[in-house]
Amino acid sequence: MGVKEMFNLAWVPSILLLALIYVVYVLIGGVIFWKLEGDLGGKDVSGLLKRKEAIFTKYTCLNQDGLVAVAQVVQDVSKAGLSLKDNRTTDGFWKFTSSAVFAATVVTTIGYGNMSPTTTVGQIFCVFFALFGIPLNVVVLNRVGKYMLALERNISDFIEGKTKRKTCTRFFVHSISYICGAVLFFIVPMIVFQQQEGWTYSQAIYYCFITLSTIGFGDFVAVCLSDNNPDYNYPDWYSVLMATWIFFGLAWLALVINHSIDILERVNVYFKQLCCGQKSE
Amino acid sequence: MGVKEMFNLAWVPSILLLALIYVVYVLIGGVIFWKLEGDLGGKDVSGLLKRKEAIFTKYTCLNQDGLVAVAQVVQDVSKAGLSLKDNRTTDGFWKFTSSAVFAATVVTTIGYGNMSPTTTVGQIFCVFFALFGIPLNVVVLNRVGKYMLALERNISDFIEGKTKRKTCTRFFVHSISYICGAVLFFIVPMIVFQQQEGWTYSQAIYYCFITLSTIGFGDFVAVCLSDNNPDYNYPDWYSVLMATWIFFGLAWLALVINHSIDILERVNVYFKQLCCGQKSE
Ligand SMILES: [K+]
Ligand SMILES: [K+]
Repeated sequence: MGVKEMFNLAWVPSILLLALIYVVYVLIGGVIFWKLEGDLGGKDVSGLLKRKEAIFTKYTCLNQDGLVAVAQVVQDVSKAGLSLKDNRTTDGFWKFTSSAVFAATVVTTIGYGNMSPTTTVGQIFCVFFALFGIPLNVVVLNRVGKYMLALERNISDFIEGKTKRKTCTRFFVHSISYICGAVLFFIVPMIVFQQQEGWTYSQAIYYCFITLSTIGFGDFVAVCLSDNNPDYNYPDWYSVLMATWIFFGLAWLALVINHSIDILERVNVYFKQLCCGQKSE
Repeated sequence: MGVKEMFNLAWVPSILLLALIYVVYVLIGGVIFWKLEGDLGGKDVSGLLKRKEAIFTKYTCLNQDGLVAVAQVVQDVSKAGLSLKDNRTTDGFWKFTSSAVFAATVVTTIGYGNMSPTTTVGQIFCVFFALFGIPLNVVVLNRVGKYMLALERNISDFIEGKTKRKTCTRFFVHSISYICGAVLFFIVPMIVFQQQEGWTYSQAIYYCFITLSTIGFGDFVAVCLSDNNPDYNYPDWYSVLMATWIFFGLAWLALVINHSIDILERVNVYFKQLCCGQKSE
């Protein structure tokens, strides 16, 4: 078996083309969200800044009523992605980069919710963007997942050809690839997040799982995805690593979850035959 | 064709059994989250209340520094699901009902994020709960989706038997079931949400789509799922309707998205054959 067969190089052009369509789709979505939310959101920002100033004049002495009013402003400001820390006029968080990240969280269905469209046009666009983006995302990730599986099978076949021990090799390669996946997509990111984000190890592994399983609570969001902290300068490689991690990690965890689904379906069919004497459909 | 064949009544026991396992799994998860987060979170609540009191004594006159400090407390209090409006000691939002809803948002991967575990034990449990819960959820929804498809096919066959016009009937039944699905899972909920939640129609439809596509930003959460507003009494039927809507809606939208994926895969194969002259794998 040559290198070309081993790594399924014949598949690569079609995967790259698909990935290109995917990236372009997400970037175009990002630009549209940026324009829709950035422009229309601008009006609200000045309103919020006015409300912030009004707090100082109205509630010089803070009481229970004042606190409720302040709480409302704080939450509205935070929703708009602004900071109360100083008077700088920021763009909110609908910059181009963060809008593209937002578009990516929509099509992957992670949906952290640290950013979400507030204008009616933005919300309607989001629905249609997701309606075509989610299937596209599934197709791309399925293709990447299939490529990973084929790679595993080829390596397994290659070692089998050398050792002539089939079951043993299969089990060995299968275990090794699970462990490699777990290290690549959970252990390495855990260490990176612990260093870069200042989270504990358990918080970092929780974040990895919540992101790759597409649950996406948004209680922890990596700083290069959230753009909420303009004071913090993360290294350039961090964003690239992050995007790569999410892309391949989603494909890998989807494979693992599909594997679990297969097992569950088999258990289900087995119990059905055992209890009801039915044949599986 | 009798009623039994028409509605696939033979399938019903196994679907009900699966649904029972699913509901029990979610409820057990809910109880564990309730105990883990409710008990351990209790300590933080008293700390937050003390910080709230300290604000009044320290920042009687509100200035820029005071506002930043207040903002921090407001956001921490809001994260813990408490209200600043009065001095009542609440349980936070980790009651039994809301914990069960939270468990459901984990296994469905909606993950609104209005609630999320803050303790280390809760976060670790959440990972393992999702690891088995997500595949179980997919299996149950797949089964319900298959049942819906079979029902459609049976109705189609039944009408075909009467009219003897195959293509026409197929297309007709297919269109009618799409429209019925859209009305049941988008138009009816839209009207209910507009009435019950006070959202605009576009916000309501945006919420329906964001929920059923499992993106789940959490910018809008129906009040019977969020439990954040103890003053608002929603009718009893609302929670039941909500659970039913999410369950069948997820199955239905998963079908629609799978249908789109099929179309995309076919387009992909078609272009591949056209451009590269490869055969589909
Ligand atoms: K989410
Ligand atoms: K989600």
